[in-house]
Amino acid sequence: MEKIVEQGLLYDFYGELLTEHQKKIYEEAVYNDMSLSEIAEDIGISRQGVHDLIKRCDKILLDYESKLHLVEKFTRIKESIREINQISESAISENSEIQRIQQLSNEILAEL
Amino acid sequence: MEKIVEQGLLYDFYGELLTEHQKKIYEEAVYNDMSLSEIAEDIGISRQGVHDLIKRCDKILLDYESKLHLVEKFTRIKESIREINQISESAISENSEIQRIQQLSNEILAEL
Repeated sequence: MEKIVEQGLLYDFYGELLTEHQKKIYEEAVYNDMSLSEIAEDIGISRQGVHDLIKRCDKILLDYESKLHLVEKFTRIKESIREINQISESAISENSEIQRIQQLSNEILAEL
Repeated sequence: MEKIVEQGLLYDFYGELLTEHQKKIYEEAVYNDMSLSEIAEDIGISRQGVHDLIKRCDKILLDYESKLHLVEKFTRIKESIREINQISESAISENSEIQRIQQLSNEILAEL
């Protein structure tokens, strides 16, 4: 499962650098979760051929990541943005507390 | 100037996909702002050779961006983060107002 997630991420970033043929087979394996035999039958090449092509694509995508580290960079940014997002949600609920402060102080001022 | 900025950004993202030779010459031209003649003398190839190599690198880097759009994506994220950062600075100064509210309400409670 972990591997599929990583393959998907790497493909999201660098997939456009594969050939159309590689993309088609890689998508069927990683996104559509088709078996090697199913893909082999669909494309008209041997099961071993499909296996080798997917391994080759894995290596190409990993090579790009080992040079550019963009999946790693985006993943870190995404974690920080998730934290900022959570904090801002708490801040919004705190803001409703501030609205309550304003309401109370207005009520008190009206009584003074 | 605009071109140098863009060349620098593209190189920051995809530079590791160039060869060592290309990187060396591209860095001298784009980062160290050396003239074609200076680089030609330094490397020991013709001025025209340096010119052609830089054009070729520009094209390679632009081709990666036209496929992956990662500079574009990062630039958009960076703009949003700058805005979030500015807003959070205003929020911090607003927080000092809230501290004043607490101080005042504590003073009043102490008097009641």
